[in-house]
Amino acid sequence: MSKLSPIEYVDAPPKVRAVFDDIKRVRGVPDVNNFWKYLAHDPATLQRTWESVKEVMEDGALSPLMKEMIYVAVSVTNGCGYCIASHSASARKAGMTEAMFGELMAVVGMANETNRLANGYRVPIDAAFDQ
Amino acid sequence: MSKLSPIEYVDAPPKVRAVFDDIKRVRGVPDVNNFWKYLAHDPATLQRTWESVKEVMEDGALSPLMKEMIYVAVSVTNGCGYCIASHSASARKAGMTEAMFGELMAVVGMANETNRLANGYRVPIDAAFDQ
Amino acid sequence: MSKLSPIEYVDAPPKVRAVFDDIKRVRGVPDVNNFWKYLAHDPATLQRTWESVKEVMEDGALSPLMKEMIYVAVSVTNGCGYCIASHSASARKAGMTEAMFGELMAVVGMANETNRLANGYRVPIDAAFDQ
Amino acid sequence: MSKLSPIEYVDAPPKVRAVFDDIKRVRGVPDVNNFWKYLAHDPATLQRTWESVKEVMEDGALSPLMKEMIYVAVSVTNGCGYCIASHSASARKAGMTEAMFGELMAVVGMANETNRLANGYRVPIDAAFDQ
Amino acid sequence: MSKLSPIEYVDAPPKVRAVFDDIKRVRGVPDVNNFWKYLAHDPATLQRTWESVKEVMEDGALSPLMKEMIYVAVSVTNGCGYCIASHSASARKAGMTEAMFGELMAVVGMANETNRLANGYRVPIDAAFDQ
Amino acid sequence: MSKLSPIEYVDAPPKVRAVFDDIKRVRGVPDVNNFWKYLAHDPATLQRTWESVKEVMEDGALSPLMKEMIYVAVSVTNGCGYCIASHSASARKAGMTEAMFGELMAVVGMANETNRLANGYRVPIDAAFDQ
Repeated sequence: MSKLSPIEYVDAPPKVRAVFDDIKRVRGVPDVNNFWKYLAHDPATLQRTWESVKEVMEDGALSPLMKEMIYVAVSVTNGCGYCIASHSASARKAGMTEAMFGELMAVVGMANETNRLANGYRVPIDAAFDQ
Repeated sequence: MSKLSPIEYVDAPPKVRAVFDDIKRVRGVPDVNNFWKYLAHDPATLQRTWESVKEVMEDGALSPLMKEMIYVAVSVTNGCGYCIASHSASARKAGMTEAMFGELMAVVGMANETNRLANGYRVPIDAAFDQ
Repeated sequence: MSKLSPIEYVDAPPKVRAVFDDIKRVRGVPDVNNFWKYLAHDPATLQRTWESVKEVMEDGALSPLMKEMIYVAVSVTNGCGYCIASHSASARKAGMTEAMFGELMAVVGMANETNRLANGYRVPIDAAFDQ
Repeated sequence: MSKLSPIEYVDAPPKVRAVFDDIKRVRGVPDVNNFWKYLAHDPATLQRTWESVKEVMEDGALSPLMKEMIYVAVSVTNGCGYCIASHSASARKAGMTEAMFGELMAVVGMANETNRLANGYRVPIDAAFDQ
Repeated sequence: MSKLSPIEYVDAPPKVRAVFDDIKRVRGVPDVNNFWKYLAHDPATLQRTWESVKEVMEDGALSPLMKEMIYVAVSVTNGCGYCIASHSASARKAGMTEAMFGELMAVVGMANETNRLANGYRVPIDAAFDQ
Repeated sequence: MSKLSPIEYVDAPPKVRAVFDDIKRVRGVPDVNNFWKYLAHDPATLQRTWESVKEVMEDGALSPLMKEMIYVAVSVTNGCGYCIASHSASARKAGMTEAMFGELMAVVGMANETNRLANGYRVPIDAAFDQ
């Protein structure tokens, strides 16, 4: 066996069902997405990850929309196909328009380019940025 | 010679001075930061990069503040020390509070974690995300 | 032609067959996996890579199981789909249980998160770590 | 202000002191390292991160030593200077010998090399790894 | 809607058609590849990216072939499946032989390995490289 | 002890001296650079890495100059400070001019940008690239 299968609610132990129920309640969705059904193979990580995501992604100094777009920026930079698909969907659900998506991609692309220019030219940090 | 030196305004050729002048004008700063002084070794890349950054970072569907925070998110994910220092400063200048910075880091950290969980568990993309 | 095809044993030149034979002998498998069938397009790299992998992955101060789990940790961090699939299988063959896989993923996820928190907060290395 | 300063115990608010005290208690150290003193700027992230690290790194199906070496493998792959320094120290404290460190680096290097060979040769996943 | 569709020439607005026409003219191809048909969702980014790529990839101190191979090296290191496929095709079209591809992959693999060995052993930069 | 020290020739065991001697002979240098002095802590990895680097970097279908520039492209993409410094020096020694360095950085930057645009727009591989 080298590939895992998703764990559906009906087959899940109580501890996993409790997390699935909370995810469905908080997000107002009828079922959880695959990410959680696979993490369910490790109930401790499933619960810890969900509790952390719930705390980190809630409305605060940054809006849920801003947070989802930041999530997309990181996922695109890392090239995580699953995360790009799921968080792009979440960002759109949170209000990201096509114009916002376009600008998000433009900034992510530009940042990845200038990160390498700064690396390659071995640019020392300006004193002003170290104060 | 294996390490470049920054090119200061007084030593810069006209084409480079023109870009430096535009950066200072647009940003309202007395001098450009090291990134531009090193890129000046390649005037074509200096000009193209500045024109692109100027177009990408201007106010639009996303605010300059949001764009600077996305820039920080990418730079932190890539581990570009210069870019983290310079764009954290730009984000603060654009209005990022400590509370916003804290939440930005929390989301960036969480996204980098769940990106790997999705990779490692080989989670297939939900049909709903492919429509 | 932009995509290569795997080179099967029957179609392989003597130098490639010799490497395939050694891989099958050392691993006790009836055939080599795709990675080697593609590397076979460059016999020199096929041989050098196999000799290196054989030397690096053999039992030593670290067990083959520990080494396969480290391989998975790196592959998950880099998001290499092929490597995650092949080395997860090798790790399981070497004795990795589901509980071990779960903890491996938990550590890899946490490390990727705190790596970015350390980057973003620009944490200086403690003197104690530089002695 | 573009660079943060570490928050020392004497200057820390109660919530932060409580986390610092728990870190010192669990690790049996007289003071926490810089990572925690910087995270202290965001008490919620400090507490969540410490609780998660404590849960993830405790002895389980994998030993603390194995977990610290996996942490090093990820940090080296990401090039996080602070994390490489701190977790190499933790791994040595947990029993990593020079021979083990040498083999760890050899596996991490090899995995990073073959990850790219698999990417570049566009190797399809063997059916056996998808079952 | 969470997944975009390619924008074909017949459905494209004038500004997008103008870019598509220039790509087809410069590359002497009957149609543009998917990358451009997706970027077309953001005409400003489509135009800016094409103008930049056209300027950067033209014959200069480095030949188009060398530039395409460097593009492949970066794409393989980042694990961008689309970019590996498209730029490997472009490199072959520009004259990359199988022997050149094999050596390119060998260098990319080796560089990714030694990058991590240098990180892990925390190797300080030689004075000679800082002059 | 958490930080290693370089191993100088006078303090090196015979097996390490033999590798150092070969590096000095092949490169025509009076001493080896720090990378090798740190790898010397693991003679087996030192020897295997040097033998591989020597084989991979020798003149072939690609010139030593082209190979050093590819090495820089990978190191800049990964942000390996030591590797950027050492291989930029090697590339210059092999004949890389400032104009070539500028174009190399421009291509590396552009590739890192478009890699992320391709990821973010979830661009499917054109059929033509899969034949």
